[in-house]
Amino acid sequence: MKTVTCTAPVNIAVIKYWGKRDTELILPTNDSLSVTLSQDILHSKTTISASKDYTQDRLWLNGKEEDITKNRRMHNCFRETRALREKMEQADSTLEPLSTYNVHVCSENNFPTAAGLASSASGLAALVYTLAQLFDLNVTVSELSRIARQGSGSACRSLFGGFVAWEKGEAKDGSDSMAVQVAPESHWPELEALVCVVSDAKKGTSSTEGMQHTVQTSPLFQERLNIVPGRMEAMKKAILERDFQSFAELTMRDSNQFHSVCLDTYPPIFYLNDTSRAIIQLVHAYNNSSPDGKLKAAYTYDAGSNAVIYAPKENMREIIQLISHYFPSQDAATYFTDPYNVIAGAPLGQDFVPQGHASFNEKVIPVFAPGSVSRLLHTKVHDGPRILASEDDSLLNAEGLPKRTV
Amino acid sequence: MKTVTCTAPVNIAVIKYWGKRDTELILPTNDSLSVTLSQDILHSKTTISASKDYTQDRLWLNGKEEDITKNRRMHNCFRETRALREKMEQADSTLEPLSTYNVHVCSENNFPTAAGLASSASGLAALVYTLAQLFDLNVTVSELSRIARQGSGSACRSLFGGFVAWEKGEAKDGSDSMAVQVAPESHWPELEALVCVVSDAKKGTSSTEGMQHTVQTSPLFQERLNIVPGRMEAMKKAILERDFQSFAELTMRDSNQFHSVCLDTYPPIFYLNDTSRAIIQLVHAYNNSSPDGKLKAAYTYDAGSNAVIYAPKENMREIIQLISHYFPSQDAATYFTDPYNVIAGAPLGQDFVPQGHASFNEKVIPVFAPGSVSRLLHTKVHDGPRILASEDDSLLNAEGLPKRTV
Repeated sequence: MKTVTCTAPVNIAVIKYWGKRDTELILPTNDSLSVTLSQDILHSKTTISASKDYTQDRLWLNGKEEDITKNRRMHNCFRETRALREKMEQADSTLEPLSTYNVHVCSENNFPTAAGLASSASGLAALVYTLAQLFDLNVTVSELSRIARQGSGSACRSLFGGFVAWEKGEAKDGSDSMAVQVAPESHWPELEALVCVVSDAKKGTSSTEGMQHTVQTSPLFQERLNIVPGRMEAMKKAILERDFQSFAELTMRDSNQFHSVCLDTYPPIFYLNDTSRAIIQLVHAYNNSSPDGKLKAAYTYDAGSNAVIYAPKENMREIIQLISHYFPSQDAATYFTDPYNVIAGAPLGQDFVPQGHASFNEKVIPVFAPGSVSRLLHTKVHDGPRILASEDDSLLNAEGLPKRTV
Repeated sequence: MKTVTCTAPVNIAVIKYWGKRDTELILPTNDSLSVTLSQDILHSKTTISASKDYTQDRLWLNGKEEDITKNRRMHNCFRETRALREKMEQADSTLEPLSTYNVHVCSENNFPTAAGLASSASGLAALVYTLAQLFDLNVTVSELSRIARQGSGSACRSLFGGFVAWEKGEAKDGSDSMAVQVAPESHWPELEALVCVVSDAKKGTSSTEGMQHTVQTSPLFQERLNIVPGRMEAMKKAILERDFQSFAELTMRDSNQFHSVCLDTYPPIFYLNDTSRAIIQLVHAYNNSSPDGKLKAAYTYDAGSNAVIYAPKENMREIIQLISHYFPSQDAATYFTDPYNVIAGAPLGQDFVPQGHASFNEKVIPVFAPGSVSRLLHTKVHDGPRILASEDDSLLNAEGLPKRTV
């Protein structure tokens, strides 16, 4: 029996992926670019063991056993990684025939699914990365990302830390549609992120379903495809030059344009609610009143109502004060998470006129009901998947069964 | 002293006007098309008197005197109509030299400005129509619409009843940018409208300001300009054929696209709030569960959060029941206005599963807090400006002063 445990991070796109040109191979209609957030707060963790004694493949997701044969996304990843392992075994008969063994897979997110944070990207990235370790695959991370892409499109970007582009590629078979690292996390350590978990009663349209409706029905969508290549180049340049002004404007514009083509879809798709909109207005008011005229923060929204605010570390304290003033906590015990103690000791919700922002209009948005934003997670740009060597970190016990179930 | 009183209706576009190619002459970037709503519920009323004894031009808006020289929009309309009168007087010296007299203008809306219903279109249309009567101008309504356009763009469409196109024109001087009637109100008497006044704490961006931000900053806006001409043709055809299916889909798609380019503006412009979005979802759920698979209602939103729902008369009762169930009244005395007694006696808020709609999902949206929709106005497609001959209807007394002030 061989057992491996890995974690993979969440990534939040600043140039959005929305639309597939091939739904089977998960080939996108445009390039996208994301920032990898720290696994210290948000990650998916996967343990896989392979044993010749296992009688069948088994899968536990967040403590609950599921039928692995019905999970097509995972199936693609198993098929591809096993095929690579098989080739290695054929070339070297001394290798253990792991590709013929059944596996037990146990995977968990360390954040509640209820938080509405995209878990499929980190989940599938953790799966593929763990499989690659299990099978000792001799492939580059980009090659691996091609496999993760077939599990969940944006999972390919969670295989790298730092700043990651997913190149859509041109080939029909998807061989050139993969992730590449634009810059590592060490390149721009000043850039940080605040995840604002926005409460939303409404169940949103799944992104898998929603994006194809957009491709099929939005007349404006085709024009977006002409716009993205220029934005990708500008965004890469902004990142390489650590130019927050360009990074911020492009990030906000591209988030808005993604939600714009959702609204141009028929019937329209809405992900932003009144709380999301108010955070957008607050960030613009904060930027517009900036004493030196510079942008101080940038919001972005995926296929949901949660805001992610990117900002230089030096502005983060003000931003947390602002958000916590206008969107006060309902449950102080879980409201704010700050593993880096960046604003340690600062009382939340005070000082809501940011320093030096004389023209900041306090009435730009009303103070929302407590709990409209349920959590604030202060995090940073960080590394790609991690291998956890300690037996304690394994989600499976010596018998290959979950240590915890629900 | 000569005194004239007229009313002009509100129009609600189904192909939206958003963007000027000339902000001075108010020349639009695209054609638009609207439906004229009945003046029985919503209108602007204007009385103008001209007298050689008046020492200055004076203006009262909704009971309050304003400085007429500072109202540039009105000034354009005065200048143009006086010039036409002057020409007539030069050609015929027996005419009273009204063009040399000062005027008193008194104008009121019969709906509260707080309702957020666009009043500039009906207001400027009433002004120009009244001036034309006062000066006995011998011009067509379309020629007059060219003048109203210079007061407020969409005012040009309020000079006709029924279904009205504003042709953007090509000429630099705006001489061919005017309104034409596509069909009179008698053409499609089954089509009715329900205005849902949505409560909104937020003060929206003015359309004058907002549309130019879109022209300047939205990359998707240019593509909309390629899309509108086809929609105009399809919409005219739908109206001429009384084809509600095409009319409804085009109306909803164009409303969504207008709000889509607002969201693609930088910074983004939002007019829809959570209540607006929920009405959109409700209308789609109602349409999708329709027993015969046909669209039964179409929403549209101008530069604000209020919904206007167009539907055939036969569906109106169900629609009012649906809206009043999910968006209950806070003040029953003012909540519902139905001058045509179409649903007389039907209790509001009951029967929220529409007849025959077995697949209607009652949980599609939650029941909102009372007052989220403050008023429902049931109205129909109706006529253009009216001349009120009775002295009782005049807003000015025999001295040329307002009968009512605030």
